[in-house]
Amino acid sequence: MGQRLPRAKSRQPGGLDPGVSVPTASAARRGRGHVARALLSVGHALRERRHFTEADVAAYAAVSGDRNPVHLDDAVARELSGFQRGRVVHGMLVDSLFPSIIAARFPGAVYASQTLKFAAPVYVGDEVVARVQALHIRTTTADSTTASRYVVKFATKCFTDEEEGSLAIEGEAMAVLPTLELSSDSTTK
Amino acid sequence: MGQRLPRAKSRQPGGLDPGVSVPTASAARRGRGHVARALLSVGHALRERRHFTEADVAAYAAVSGDRNPVHLDDAVARELSGFQRGRVVHGMLVDSLFPSIIAARFPGAVYASQTLKFAAPVYVGDEVVARVQALHIRTTTADSTTASRYVVKFATKCFTDEEEGSLAIEGEAMAVLPTLELSSDSTTK
Repeated sequence: MGQRLPRAKSRQPGGLDPGVSVPTASAARRGRGHVARALLSVGHALRERRHFTEADVAAYAAVSGDRNPVHLDDAVARELSGFQRGRVVHGMLVDSLFPSIIAARFPGAVYASQTLKFAAPVYVGDEVVARVQALHIRTTTADSTTASRYVVKFATKCFTDEEEGSLAIEGEAMAVLPTLELSSDSTTK
Repeated sequence: MGQRLPRAKSRQPGGLDPGVSVPTASAARRGRGHVARALLSVGHALRERRHFTEADVAAYAAVSGDRNPVHLDDAVARELSGFQRGRVVHGMLVDSLFPSIIAARFPGAVYASQTLKFAAPVYVGDEVVARVQALHIRTTTADSTTASRYVVKFATKCFTDEEEGSLAIEGEAMAVLPTLELSSDSTTK
């Protein structure tokens, strides 16, 4: 089905939130084997940890065309923009974790909207934890030509500490998912 | 000052909006030469045109880790996600044009927030026009250790046609600029 490329080496796929109970669907009922699959429900959180390297920032600058020296030059980042530890990761690169987390669990998901507030910088070399938590789920009605879809509102946050106390980015996203079943790729790795 | 890398070949730096009059500051007064420089003011629009290639999408998938098949597999994009023309460009890659436009004119700019609504898809191979227009400018007060800064609210829109009638993405951004003078790099190219 979907073209699956190898994951980038600096990414670590996160698991389910262990504090939230997750209903399961019988995969056998859907003819995909005998493993029970997790279903997304309200309150359910998905996480991913990532370390942003200098090479990541250079690659992102090349593809986005955003060569703001605040991302590439420690002296400018400190003196002109006030970032005491020097170069910061592009906000839009850190943000890319949110659709990445959703897409890894729900291949075929379509993003509808995103809000973003940049509360604190992510410096080049920092490790972050991104968290996407379902706030609301609405099912669209199937008709003769279209299957049901799931419109999900997520709280999207990114932290610079393991304890998820130091907020770097916060906002909300809306995405349309083809299913609420989490991809087996994401839950078994 | 800032490390300046060559521009990506598929990007074309846009100019000032010819319909808006732009005040200028005497560069001589600031000791930087004799060329009058444009100053950002409310209503002022900055644009950039970009063609997103398959290679751009592959490079972005690699650095972001977002390997949603909707961006990489025409069949999935059509059948699972309803995109009739096949693969679509990552929304966050198209969005990267907004901070790129601002950073190219105001090196050292810092992004504070962004809202994004994805109104229509941008297909792989499409050319888009991104437009960033100043809605409000607030000057922060300088003190003995800190220079004045400019907090600017921008309308951020992306269109799939030259006439700017077919909206793909819309939202607003807040950025903190070290100056309102447009970089000479951006106005002379």
